[in-house]
Amino acid sequence: MSLDRQPTTTARRRVTRQDVARLAGVSVPVVTYALNGGPKNVSPATRDKVLAAVDQLGYRPNAAARALRRGRSELLGIIVPNLANPLFAALAHEVEVAAGSRGVTLIVLSASPGEVAAGLERLAARQVDGVLVATPVRSGDIAAIEVTGLPTVLINQPGAIEGIPAIGVDQYGGARLAVDHLVAQGHRDIAYLGPASGDQRRHEGWRDAMGAAGLAPVRVVETPFTREGGYLAGRTVLASTPRPSAVFASSDQIALGALRAFHEAAIDVPGDIAVASFDDSPDAAYAWPPLSSVSQPIGRMAREAVGRLLDGVPADGTPFQQFPVELVVRRSSVREP
Amino acid sequence: MSLDRQPTTTARRRVTRQDVARLAGVSVPVVTYALNGGPKNVSPATRDKVLAAVDQLGYRPNAAARALRRGRSELLGIIVPNLANPLFAALAHEVEVAAGSRGVTLIVLSASPGEVAAGLERLAARQVDGVLVATPVRSGDIAAIEVTGLPTVLINQPGAIEGIPAIGVDQYGGARLAVDHLVAQGHRDIAYLGPASGDQRRHEGWRDAMGAAGLAPVRVVETPFTREGGYLAGRTVLASTPRPSAVFASSDQIALGALRAFHEAAIDVPGDIAVASFDDSPDAAYAWPPLSSVSQPIGRMAREAVGRLLDGVPADGTPFQQFPVELVVRRSSVREP
Repeated sequence: MSLDRQPTTTARRRVTRQDVARLAGVSVPVVTYALNGGPKNVSPATRDKVLAAVDQLGYRPNAAARALRRGRSELLGIIVPNLANPLFAALAHEVEVAAGSRGVTLIVLSASPGEVAAGLERLAARQVDGVLVATPVRSGDIAAIEVTGLPTVLINQPGAIEGIPAIGVDQYGGARLAVDHLVAQGHRDIAYLGPASGDQRRHEGWRDAMGAAGLAPVRVVETPFTREGGYLAGRTVLASTPRPSAVFASSDQIALGALRAFHEAAIDVPGDIAVASFDDSPDAAYAWPPLSSVSQPIGRMAREAVGRLLDGVPADGTPFQQFPVELVVRRSSVREP
Repeated sequence: MSLDRQPTTTARRRVTRQDVARLAGVSVPVVTYALNGGPKNVSPATRDKVLAAVDQLGYRPNAAARALRRGRSELLGIIVPNLANPLFAALAHEVEVAAGSRGVTLIVLSASPGEVAAGLERLAARQVDGVLVATPVRSGDIAAIEVTGLPTVLINQPGAIEGIPAIGVDQYGGARLAVDHLVAQGHRDIAYLGPASGDQRRHEGWRDAMGAAGLAPVRVVETPFTREGGYLAGRTVLASTPRPSAVFASSDQIALGALRAFHEAAIDVPGDIAVASFDDSPDAAYAWPPLSSVSQPIGRMAREAVGRLLDGVPADGTPFQQFPVELVVRRSSVREP
């Protein structure tokens, strides 16, 4: 392979408004008026000449130039912890489709919880019209959001933070739904698998559902929201004595990892251990056994988020727009779903 | 909720180069030279004054303006069939990370095979510096690629098409690896699950591996690359007489669907039916049983693709850069992996 390099395609000079004006026999401002519909009117005959020249030359308005003129880039940004996580892939997909239906293009940035401020700075430099933040924000990020001055909506987070509006679900209530369901199946010893430190509404929902049923919320296996973490948590569950009869995994990814640990140990799900989880990501229905999981209306939330960023938030200022969750019961938690 | 709407945050006037010049007591071109390092030199003392003003005002260079000046947007685009598919989510993630490490931002577009040309047009209007196309291209798309004049690299496709460079794996050879493996496990009746019409290298690999083993490549269950399609294909396999002893699924998503059908029918994998597939997406290791799958080096291909788009292609013009595949053997195809 040679070290000489050349561009993939022959560079061709971009067709400009000047070229269109020359071919149409009009001035450059007239081309602009004809294409933008103002500020001055042009006659239908002149407009036709301009459009014919546009067609003939293959002129394409420059989005960067248009962004400067209009003060809008028609770009939105989304910051996710990891696009390879199926929940965030599904969310980004829905946001991209919702944005595309309004002629707006999506920039995707991966940023861990410590990297949100840097991601916001990068998106601000792109003059995006707004940012959706799905990575959990920390207090320092709030200052970054304020400094950029960008319309920002938090998504997949427990609620609004310091006035930054948020779209999400009732994570606490969803967790209670799942644990209440396991209790109703007769389980008394239900372990929690997931993050448990700090502001973890799913953990609180498990704890209070246990308390409301007169059960001691003592079994906590801390793990991040990953399959790998869920696998290790599942092994920890199996090593505990007595073994719990059910687990509430605070995300599908954790549940998938735990299922693998249970399968490897020839533990029957739900016969030996019942499993319920949270997110109802595309994985849940195709896990084995299929996962009972708390469903988030990702598509509706994505459309609402795009609308908020492009149109502004309701003036009555409800900072947290909460969407309903429902528990989708599948085979992982009941013998006959 | 009120119908009155207001912007999410108070609009604030953007700080400009003029503001920086005024505060630093220099002319606007001097600010430009100081920040860009040229074309004229400025004294260290002047540069310090400019940088102090930049800090004090929170001035941020406008990416749209910079794109116009430099003729580069530092944006790349990727077109995928569906970001919610874990393989494409993993690919987009790796491309985003590779681009980010070079200061380049990624725009993600979903486009079905019939929508590639429209997606290219949208990205061209954004003046992206290059496009990665993961959605299978059709002949009409080639014309669109040529019209946009954008550096373009195909990825996850069988090879280069009409001079458009491509990065990918040996899909034919990978499929042969998987089927040879099933043959080596003693299987004589191996069904193919996947697309089989047109230019389908994975299908050809299955067919020729069967032929090379003296087996008749007669069992084809056509399905698109989806879990839902794999589920229906799995049910078709179960309804056939005699039932094949193994299946080669041409993607992990298809295999996941087939596994669900086999589980529901209490068919043991690999005891009753062995399964091997292609892609080794993040799902494969966490399926039950874990899937034997042909692995693509997604991360390396993503980095190479970003490098090609930003730096140009090798001048010797090998249009298809092929990465090695390997078969990762897991429990779905062998009793003791």
